[in-house]
Amino acid sequence: MTNSDDVWRLLRDQVAAREAVECPLDQAFGRVLREDVKAPEDQPAFDRSAVDGFAVRSGDTSESFRIVGEIRAGDWKPSDLPIGEVLRIATGGAIPGPGTEVVMLEDTVEDSGKVRLLRRGGDHIRRQGDDAKTGEVLIRAGTTLTDGCIALLASVGCTKPLVTRKLRARHIVTGNEIIDPAHFPSPGQIRDANSSLVAAWSALHRLELRQHRVGENAEELRAGMDGAEDLYLISGGASVGRYDFTEQVLRETGFTLLVTKVNARPGKPLLIARRGEQWAFGLPGNPLSHFVCLHVFVAAAVASMHGGALRPELLQGTCLDEVAGNPRETWWPADIEISGLRPLRWASSGDITSLARTRALLRVPSFGLAVDCAAEFIRTT
Amino acid sequence: MTNSDDVWRLLRDQVAAREAVECPLDQAFGRVLREDVKAPEDQPAFDRSAVDGFAVRSGDTSESFRIVGEIRAGDWKPSDLPIGEVLRIATGGAIPGPGTEVVMLEDTVEDSGKVRLLRRGGDHIRRQGDDAKTGEVLIRAGTTLTDGCIALLASVGCTKPLVTRKLRARHIVTGNEIIDPAHFPSPGQIRDANSSLVAAWSALHRLELRQHRVGENAEELRAGMDGAEDLYLISGGASVGRYDFTEQVLRETGFTLLVTKVNARPGKPLLIARRGEQWAFGLPGNPLSHFVCLHVFVAAAVASMHGGALRPELLQGTCLDEVAGNPRETWWPADIEISGLRPLRWASSGDITSLARTRALLRVPSFGLAVDCAAEFIRTT
Repeated sequence: MTNSDDVWRLLRDQVAAREAVECPLDQAFGRVLREDVKAPEDQPAFDRSAVDGFAVRSGDTSESFRIVGEIRAGDWKPSDLPIGEVLRIATGGAIPGPGTEVVMLEDTVEDSGKVRLLRRGGDHIRRQGDDAKTGEVLIRAGTTLTDGCIALLASVGCTKPLVTRKLRARHIVTGNEIIDPAHFPSPGQIRDANSSLVAAWSALHRLELRQHRVGENAEELRAGMDGAEDLYLISGGASVGRYDFTEQVLRETGFTLLVTKVNARPGKPLLIARRGEQWAFGLPGNPLSHFVCLHVFVAAAVASMHGGALRPELLQGTCLDEVAGNPRETWWPADIEISGLRPLRWASSGDITSLARTRALLRVPSFGLAVDCAAEFIRTT
Repeated sequence: MTNSDDVWRLLRDQVAAREAVECPLDQAFGRVLREDVKAPEDQPAFDRSAVDGFAVRSGDTSESFRIVGEIRAGDWKPSDLPIGEVLRIATGGAIPGPGTEVVMLEDTVEDSGKVRLLRRGGDHIRRQGDDAKTGEVLIRAGTTLTDGCIALLASVGCTKPLVTRKLRARHIVTGNEIIDPAHFPSPGQIRDANSSLVAAWSALHRLELRQHRVGENAEELRAGMDGAEDLYLISGGASVGRYDFTEQVLRETGFTLLVTKVNARPGKPLLIARRGEQWAFGLPGNPLSHFVCLHVFVAAAVASMHGGALRPELLQGTCLDEVAGNPRETWWPADIEISGLRPLRWASSGDITSLARTRALLRVPSFGLAVDCAAEFIRTT
C-alpha cells in the first residue's frame, strides 16, 4: 500500500518530461509553458497618457490654451510645449516630452480651436516601466496558460511560446458488465460512465485520446497496449477479484508494476506501471474512484510530462463541515464556497502583468476594502 | 454612467436565450445544460457489493464455508444462501437476495473450494437508492458541464443532454496604433494583445469566433458588422477621443446604443448596443480593461444567451489585503489563495451524484477534519 505522497514522489522522480515545442499563440490557450517569459522591454515601453485629454506644460496656468496639434495612440511626436499651447492626446498616446502633464477631456471646455482646463491634478501619465522592467519574469515555466496569460504573451510579442508537445493517451475499458451508456442496463449491468469521464478529463488536460471497450477479452486488451502513447489508462479490472486481469496483461506487455495499491480512498486498488517512458494506470471501476485517481494521481504523471509543473497543486483551505476519518486517507469531493482573495498589483488599465496571475476579479466598492473583510468576486479561471 | 448591477439587469432582461439542442455526450464537455437532469432510476439501481469478497447469509457463523458459485459484476443471480455456503462476489456484483452480507476478500482465507471468514462486521452493501432516488434532480439547468457532470450523465444514460447551441461571435480590432504582436513596435505603436485575449476567452466560453483588424477604417468596420452573429466585440475606439468612431458605426449599422459608460474601472468607456437579438460591445482598448469587460459584462450577455445561467456568478470571499477605494467601483485582479471547502455527500466509491458539484478534492487524514480546521485540497475545475 503506497501513500499518496510516495506515489507523487515516484511519479515526479521517474516520469520524464516530454519535449517542449514552439506553439503559435492562437493554439496556446490551456497549454503548459516550458520557459520563463521575461519582459523584452519596459512595460509600458514609453511614457503614455492614461486618458483622452490634452497634454500641457506642467505649471502652465494660462487661462485658455491654443490647440496646436494632436497625438493619436499610434503617434510619436516629441516636442516641447510652449506656454499657452496644448496638444490633443488620446489614451495610450506617447507623452511628447518631459515636464508635461495630461488633463482629462472631461475636465476641459473647447471653443473654436481653444480650450480651457477646468481642473488639474494628477498627471495622468503611466510611466515607462511602471508595470514591469525589462527582463522581469512575467510568466513562470510550468504555468497553464489562461486567457490572461495569452493576452500578456501577445502584449510582449511572445507569439511562439515554448510549451509541452501534445500528450497522447489511450483509454481501454474492461469489464463484461459495462454497457454503452445509451443502452438500458439489464439487472447487474452498469452503464459505461468512465469513457465519458476520461474523455472530458483528457480534454481538460489537452490530451490526444483514443478509447475503446474490450469487455474481459485479454487478447484485445493486450493488443490495445501495443502503441507509442505516453499514457495508458485502463478502467476496471484493477481490484483483487478473480476476473481482474489488468495486472497480468500489463506484465505480459512489458510493463513493470510499481504500485498495486494506494493507501487512499476512494481508489485503493490503483495500478501504476511503466514500460520505458510509457506509463500505465489501472483504475478501479467506479466513476468516483476514477475521478479521484485521475485528478490526484494520473494528473501527477501528466504534470511530470509537462516538465515538473506543480499540478496537481496542493492548496490550503478551511474545512467548513466535520468529516469523519478512516484508516485510509480520503480524497473527499468538495465544493469551494468561500475564498480568500489576494489583490494583485495594478495601477492603470494599461497595466498587463497582473493578467498572468489573475484568477478572480474582486469587486471593490468606492470606500475600498479592509484586510479580512467580506468581499464579492467573480472567478475568471 | 451605468452601474454594474444595472448593466447585469439590462442584459438579463433583454438578451434572449438561444435555442437548446441535443448534444452527443462526447461533445458536451464545457457546454451549458438547459434541462434539469433527473435520476431515471434509483442510484445504485440494485443492492450491490461495495467490495470484492464473499456473499454469506447474515448470522451464519459456520466455521468454514463451501464456495458454491460466483457473482461477477455483470451477473444477476437471485438466490437464497443456505447455511454453510457462500458465493464469490465482485465489486458491483448484485446481492443475490435479502438477509445477505458481504465479507471482504482481504478478511478471508481460501483452501480447496472452502473459505474461512476471519472477520465480519459491516455488510459492505451499497443499497438501491442510497446515492439518489428515482426522479431526484442530479444536475440543474444552467450548469456548465464539468468532467464530473459528464460522468454522471453517462452513468444515468443521459447521452444526448439538451445544451445551448454553439454561440457565434465576431471580433473586430480598431486603432491605427495596433500592430501584429509578432512585429516589433515603433515608438507609439502597441502590439495587438486583444485578439489573442478574445480568442482565448471565447475558447473558454465555447464561442465560435471570427476575428480581424480594421485600423481606423470606418468602411471596413461597417462591413464587419454585417452578419448574423449573436455577439459583436469591437476593441478600442470606445473612449471619448476624437478618432473613436465605434459608436457612430454602431448607429449606422442599425444598432441601438443602450450603455455608453459604466461606473466601473477598469473599463469605463464600455459601449453596449443591440440590433434585434444581436448584441455588440465596444471594449476600451487596454488588455486589462478588455479582460474585466469580457469577464464581468460580456459574460453576462453570454449567460443570458445560455438561458439565464447564473454566470458570471458573484461569489463571496474574504479580502486578504487592504484595497484603496475609488469613486468608481473597481473590478480588481486577484489571486485566490485560501478557500473554504464544503464536503459533499458520498458514502461509497460507487456513488456518483456528488460528481456534479465537485470542484475540489479535500484531503482528509485518517483522524478526520473538524469544522473550520485547515485542510489541503486539489482543485478539479
